Amino acid sequence: MPEIEQARRERLQGAVAALDAAAALITSPPNVRYLTGLASSNAAVLVPASGTGAVLATDSRYALTARRECPDLELLTERLIEPALARLAAARGLGRVAFEAHEMTVERHLAFAAAAADGGAVPDLVPLGRAVEQLRMVKDESEIAALARACAITSRALEDLLAILRPGQTERELAGLLERRMSELGAERPAFETIVASGPNGAIPHHAPGDRAVGRGDMVTIDCGARYGGYHADLTRTVVIGRPAAWQREIYDLAAAAQRAGIEAAVPGADLARVDGAARGLIAEGGHAEHFTHGLGHGVGLEIHEAPIMGHGQTGTLGDRVPITVEPGIYLPGQGGVRIEDTLVVRAGSGTAAPQDILTTTTRELTVL
Amino acid sequence: MPEIEQARRERLQGAVAALDAAAALITSPPNVRYLTGLASSNAAVLVPASGTGAVLATDSRYALTARRECPDLELLTERLIEPALARLAAARGLGRVAFEAHEMTVERHLAFAAAAADGGAVPDLVPLGRAVEQLRMVKDESEIAALARACAITSRALEDLLAILRPGQTERELAGLLERRMSELGAERPAFETIVASGPNGAIPHHAPGDRAVGRGDMVTIDCGARYGGYHADLTRTVVIGRPAAWQREIYDLAAAAQRAGIEAAVPGADLARVDGAARGLIAEGGHAEHFTHGLGHGVGLEIHEAPIMGHGQTGTLGDRVPITVEPGIYLPGQGGVRIEDTLVVRAGSGTAAPQDILTTTTRELTVL
Repeated sequence: MPEIEQARRERLQGAVAALDAAAALITSPPNVRYLTGLASSNAAVLVPASGTGAVLATDSRYALTARRECPDLELLTERLIEPALARLAAARGLGRVAFEAHEMTVERHLAFAAAAADGGAVPDLVPLGRAVEQLRMVKDESEIAALARACAITSRALEDLLAILRPGQTERELAGLLERRMSELGAERPAFETIVASGPNGAIPHHAPGDRAVGRGDMVTIDCGARYGGYHADLTRTVVIGRPAAWQREIYDLAAAAQRAGIEAAVPGADLARVDGAARGLIAEGGHAEHFTHGLGHGVGLEIHEAPIMGHGQTGTLGDRVPITVEPGIYLPGQGGVRIEDTLVVRAGSGTAAPQDILTTTTRELTVL
Repeated sequence: MPEIEQARRERLQGAVAALDAAAALITSPPNVRYLTGLASSNAAVLVPASGTGAVLATDSRYALTARRECPDLELLTERLIEPALARLAAARGLGRVAFEAHEMTVERHLAFAAAAADGGAVPDLVPLGRAVEQLRMVKDESEIAALARACAITSRALEDLLAILRPGQTERELAGLLERRMSELGAERPAFETIVASGPNGAIPHHAPGDRAVGRGDMVTIDCGARYGGYHADLTRTVVIGRPAAWQREIYDLAAAAQRAGIEAAVPGADLARVDGAARGLIAEGGHAEHFTHGLGHGVGLEIHEAPIMGHGQTGTLGDRVPITVEPGIYLPGQGGVRIEDTLVVRAGSGTAAPQDILTTTTRELTVL
């Protein structure tokens, strides 16, 4: 839909003009996809501060797709895309170009300047900042629909896995079964490397599934997501095999209460630190402050981790139509851990998240297998 | 195996010392994994020019894994890993630090300098170049074994797919079936997004599988790979559904002859451009020079595309124990295309690739379904 991408580029132009730049050079692959519709590992787009004359550069592998998907863009087919755009910027006499300093490497930055010099004039390169990521934070309904589908696939796949999970299966087997089920249900691919962390491994937030077999008495944390239409779901549940021990029940209930508090606090206009604090405060009151070692959540969209980030002293507020995760965890080294995570859309017009805004639907009650 | 990674770090030290640097700051995730054994999306390692005192920085999510996998390394657990290492470098009075300019962003480069200034002294930052990538090009036998397993899974999965492929299935369905089969056979995940390009889509080298159903008369190109133990396989076959047309047979035979010529030329000491030229020359003689639009092949290992690259004017020579792909293609816009690709290990002691060095084993004869 070239009109959607054209409208997105227009929204970017304000930020470019505010820097007094003639154009923005966008090189981050998800940002290029967002602004052009082209999914490519080697593409960049030069967006002018005004007017519609954006230039897309990509290599020959993507040229036919680019011509089909982005008929309204001027297309440069070159293997070295930034030098090509640098020569073009120089030839067009662009005095100042904003670039993505958080994405462009030092080497490519030098190559851009060198190629521009070949083209006759080196534009002043100024950091654009995360202007496209800011735009991407607020989703349109087509994006939310893709994300909802990704979340529905993920929820269903996890429920199907839990229905067949048996003691003796290894973490790696379970991760494989889950990913295959997501694929059968229509996922393009896993949104990230599935985490299955059983028993003491549950104390490792990003544990890579290994050869440990799950057994009676284990808590098992499964963190998974499907990608659909380019959009990334994120869902975590911790289940227990056999009758839960008192400590397992305690940390589960505490994490669940913290998650509810975080979800309730996640309303448009809410300060990011306060949302994080709503959940973190409960965990601290429960005596586990030092066992919740990561932020409360993050935006999801064309990337699995994107703005806004809640925690780590991040500042800002939530807006309307912003999908986020809320995922408190409690990790007891050597013993085990729990994490409960949902993907939801912050929406205006409701005091707290309506049920339909929580896109991942697997039960949040402690599942005992 | 900490000894393996220690030996790798020692091999890097020559390059660091040659730059007159006190240490190298390694930030590329596959390079960090290669030098430490830690697979993490947020880790960096500071390798001194001499001695064994390397420092690994990662965040709390990976800290337990790092302590277990890298017991011989000094560990810094910080969310912002480069500023932490910058302060440490400043505190230790390192006068000059080599960094990965092809990987570090302009923003992180500035943050490193700012944090070092906080620590009392900004080291001179000099580009290390692709020193770690150069080391990674030559694989040890444990790496080759992981790659061989990845290739065996891939070959078997593709054969199983071809056995059930039927007209009416869509490209997307076929890609999903193949990826699930790789997972069942033990793949960690697909090494890259599977390509299934049927009929006219076959003219697009990196076509994303879509809703087109394959049908009689189509050539179908399937480019796929499993990842196993972190190592990436790469295999492409083009098959035909129903009796091949003359033009299909012609471009298939030409691509197959070009691939054989490329494989024969891929011996230790061979010039990269000559290997590319051996295949490209045949395609040009066949009148299709302008229809072979990409390089002949690339190294594979911890990344799907790594050094050496053959084509695009790349210079250098092949070494012993270097895994590469050989993948000529012929693309006829609007009509269709063919690509034949194998992963093989260049080995000393044989005039040409021995059968056991070609790790992907699916038949290279034109498969007619």
